[in-house]
Amino acid sequence: MALAHKGLDHGSIPWRFTEKDAIAPHGSEKVPVLLHVDKSVADSWEIANYLEDHFPDRPFLFGGEGGRAAARMINSWGDIVVNGGLFPLIVSDIPPHLGPVDAYYFRASREARLGRKLEEATAERDKSVIAFRRSLEPMRTTLRAQPWLGGAAPNYADYIVFGGFQWARVVSPFRLLAEDDPIHAWREKLLDAFDGLARKSPGFAV
Amino acid sequence: MALAHKGLDHGSIPWRFTEKDAIAPHGSEKVPVLLHVDKSVADSWEIANYLEDHFPDRPFLFGGEGGRAAARMINSWGDIVVNGGLFPLIVSDIPPHLGPVDAYYFRASREARLGRKLEEATAERDKSVIAFRRSLEPMRTTLRAQPWLGGAAPNYADYIVFGGFQWARVVSPFRLLAEDDPIHAWREKLLDAFDGLARKSPGFAV
Repeated sequence: MALAHKGLDHGSIPWRFTEKDAIAPHGSEKVPVLLHVDKSVADSWEIANYLEDHFPDRPFLFGGEGGRAAARMINSWGDIVVNGGLFPLIVSDIPPHLGPVDAYYFRASREARLGRKLEEATAERDKSVIAFRRSLEPMRTTLRAQPWLGGAAPNYADYIVFGGFQWARVVSPFRLLAEDDPIHAWREKLLDAFDGLARKSPGFAV
Repeated sequence: MALAHKGLDHGSIPWRFTEKDAIAPHGSEKVPVLLHVDKSVADSWEIANYLEDHFPDRPFLFGGEGGRAAARMINSWGDIVVNGGLFPLIVSDIPPHLGPVDAYYFRASREARLGRKLEEATAERDKSVIAFRRSLEPMRTTLRAQPWLGGAAPNYADYIVFGGFQWARVVSPFRLLAEDDPIHAWREKLLDAFDGLARKSPGFAV
């Protein structure tokens, strides 16, 4: 989304959880990793900063230094509240999308992290989604007052939070958001952005 | 804090919960209300925007339009997570600071909101503070990466969140933050800011 926002041509290289060797030369164990000419940059926040600083003549991802600073807090909020909150709601839906080696790795590492079976985490999700939805209230209040987290137009603050919802959408049919939630409408608009870039990715209608 | 940041001379008018008549002409039932020449502006967010727009030659409260947009989300987060989270931890400490009429009004209105006695809300606060501290993790992570929510220097994002902690500090001896919490160090620095403006207010050493 950040690359599209900047209007930069790009492609993507499919990658599996266990293909650590493929990204090790770039100093990371996790995606995303951006490859640009002879540079590599890992982590969404670092990538956004790299793009903002290297392409200052393109549309701004942060809208100034105050926006960059505050976006870091929204980035953290997205990581912890959104990604951390939806993870136990969708986690058991992930292994069926993986090859056998990755499914084994994913289950072992995530069950260690959760301290229980993936299926136990999602078993009561019809109830536990209520607390997740409640935890999004700061974002909901914001979207009642302005169309985007970025203000009049979407920016990195929107994309980083959207990333978590998109991750969920491509792996799980579970409905994280009620249809009358302003966050649902916001997600729909981001699925449509950039000629439906995110919606074109295979996923569930949630 | 916003007025001090802008370097604007100002005074304050003491006000009690039940003195609704005093602020009704300004279209508000709640403080803060800013009076400036022949204008009045209610609500912290509206006041910050008013100051930013009317004094653009003074230090920026938002650091650009991206900062303003993202600050609204941090404002909401402060209202809901910080103020809403600390309220039940300190609420029973408030009435002893109030005159009889205000103490009665405060207890009746807040017990209706909480659905229980103020003392019941705070009874288990040594336990419930743990969830409150955990809910601050997005801010804690941010402050591990940069000195202020506003980036290299404090701005409105810091002041609005600090406001909740300052409110707690002036009415309650309860320790909301562990001493080794980066948010504790951040609060100390804001208590010292502007020649100790916030620390000069009567309050508890927390």
